[in-house]
Amino acid sequence: MPEAMTVTAEALGRQLDAILTAWGMPADIRARTVDVMLQADLMGIDSHGVGMLGLYETQRGEGAINMAPEVTVVRESPVTALLDGDSGLGHHASLTAVDMAVDKAKASGLAAVAVRNSAHYGAAGVYALRAAEQGLIGISSSSVWNAAIVPTRAKEPIFGTNPWAFAAPAARHKPFLLDMATSTVAIGKFRLAMMADRPLPVGWALDKDGEPQTDSALAAVEKLCTPLGATPELSSHKGYGLAAMVEILCVALTGSTFASMRAEGQGPADIGHFFLALDPGAFRDAAEVRADVDRLIDRLHGAARRDPDVPVLVPGDKEYASIEDRSRDGIPLSGPMVELISGVAERAGAPLTLDRATA
Amino acid sequence: MPEAMTVTAEALGRQLDAILTAWGMPADIRARTVDVMLQADLMGIDSHGVGMLGLYETQRGEGAINMAPEVTVVRESPVTALLDGDSGLGHHASLTAVDMAVDKAKASGLAAVAVRNSAHYGAAGVYALRAAEQGLIGISSSSVWNAAIVPTRAKEPIFGTNPWAFAAPAARHKPFLLDMATSTVAIGKFRLAMMADRPLPVGWALDKDGEPQTDSALAAVEKLCTPLGATPELSSHKGYGLAAMVEILCVALTGSTFASMRAEGQGPADIGHFFLALDPGAFRDAAEVRADVDRLIDRLHGAARRDPDVPVLVPGDKEYASIEDRSRDGIPLSGPMVELISGVAERAGAPLTLDRATA
Repeated sequence: MPEAMTVTAEALGRQLDAILTAWGMPADIRARTVDVMLQADLMGIDSHGVGMLGLYETQRGEGAINMAPEVTVVRESPVTALLDGDSGLGHHASLTAVDMAVDKAKASGLAAVAVRNSAHYGAAGVYALRAAEQGLIGISSSSVWNAAIVPTRAKEPIFGTNPWAFAAPAARHKPFLLDMATSTVAIGKFRLAMMADRPLPVGWALDKDGEPQTDSALAAVEKLCTPLGATPELSSHKGYGLAAMVEILCVALTGSTFASMRAEGQGPADIGHFFLALDPGAFRDAAEVRADVDRLIDRLHGAARRDPDVPVLVPGDKEYASIEDRSRDGIPLSGPMVELISGVAERAGAPLTLDRATA
Repeated sequence: MPEAMTVTAEALGRQLDAILTAWGMPADIRARTVDVMLQADLMGIDSHGVGMLGLYETQRGEGAINMAPEVTVVRESPVTALLDGDSGLGHHASLTAVDMAVDKAKASGLAAVAVRNSAHYGAAGVYALRAAEQGLIGISSSSVWNAAIVPTRAKEPIFGTNPWAFAAPAARHKPFLLDMATSTVAIGKFRLAMMADRPLPVGWALDKDGEPQTDSALAAVEKLCTPLGATPELSSHKGYGLAAMVEILCVALTGSTFASMRAEGQGPADIGHFFLALDPGAFRDAAEVRADVDRLIDRLHGAARRDPDVPVLVPGDKEYASIEDRSRDGIPLSGPMVELISGVAERAGAPLTLDRATA
């Protein structure tokens, strides 16, 4: 096992670029994909940045992902569009989609752009934040190829962990940024608990009978998630409804494949994404809306604390603190992460540049 | 205490109309308000239909609600609008808003209409369903005048129970219809548990120190709700984020008053609503989208059950079953509900017509 290390975003970007080059991704798409993946790592969403390389390698190996996709516009109006992702990784198509939504919303006040026939798009929040950084309220959502969330009263998975992100611009503060899976927790947490030899709390996972699964090793293999709300008593039907909402917007609206209805042998592509951008200035003076978001953020930061030493966080606080830390100090990579990246690079025939670039 | 009774929707509507007439509400607004309130009762959402009369009476008594509001358009574009509810009950302004959103979305593919300076709008799902019944995907959301949801890590309430509703049209099936508060459960459930002398499960309510409150009598008085997710371990930060999202869309975007920032002596009005309508036909053939929603609903109904005798429900199933039952058999009113309605009618000087119209 290689040692853990800390690298600059630039160095990690160069390594990612070398791997994607070896995989045959054209330069323009590569730059965009590296940019989105690095943002996830800078934001501290380690599971959705370079940590995804192993999955992408597998899916590429299965021939499910097109490394040189041509993203096309299937249908378009001044405030809507449907794009076809041409089976590519979702980052490039999603940047195209969210930028179209932003441009249309700047012109008309509101726009929604959806993507069909795409693959994993990384961290949902990156796209919502991209809209908010341009002064718009942004929504980003995606379906997932594999069913993991078990609906309330069921015992089989129907929905992906179907993320939902919402961002709103403030004035003095960075944008409000909510980025959440509609499951109670990410599947990765089952594995982390297993490695720490800890049981799971009731409400994180289910077993094959639909009963709570507290054995982390079994949960990591079964991969059966509860919807947000955890148990029927604590309103899991709400998280189930939100997961379904995401799949209606990303799959039914776009004509992609439902997580629970993939054909035998169908690869992990043909998922869908949904982006919405809304110009606050279409409703009232945009500066007043931003000032009100500031007031809400200040109110939350100043809220009476359950524990005086533990501040109340606003959605986005953790991500912005991570961006600041990691931009200054570098991005920490665990030993297994270094091994993953090195292995992917080696198998791709890409030069290993990571070790020459510690922060 | 009067006896429980069952009345037709028509009879209940006549009684409601008599009360609203006595309160000085003009005929056109009255018809719309009665229609929305009755729909909630038909759907089985007893807490948000005639059950609201006591609250409306109190708020009217405080001079907070204008019974003859003139709803005006503050700002408008082909795909957006901001309305001013003129301190009226929210039903009339919300029907105006959702109908504007539907008309604009039919013309342009997508539209959002928000309302400022409004009051309680009843059941969120009624408005989302109204869009879906016209072939559009609908979103309905509202702020609430009183803060009840305590953010993760805090010990004071900041957000209302901030409902979020999402509806999508199907073909063979009735629309998918999610209608949820962003709290774990409605405050009314604390009171129901108290009356049944039952403790609350950990995760429903908090005490004034931010610790779980399981004493239902205390919870019913303190009215401190957890966000969906219930506890930090079960991801209450997600429900907290959703509650904040609702307040950004309904309050910051509209210029209404945040639940946690009401001035001393400010009444319960000046809340905001947000409605969005989206035409599936702007993205792909609308019939194909509807057929895909059908397929998802069928997949859910056919999902392997945790308990073979307990079917998996789709959001909306309960409401549609209630509409069918209550349209045929009448709307059941408990003794306390009959007492409430009779008392409100008497104090308003309205004729009591309920008892002449049992189903």
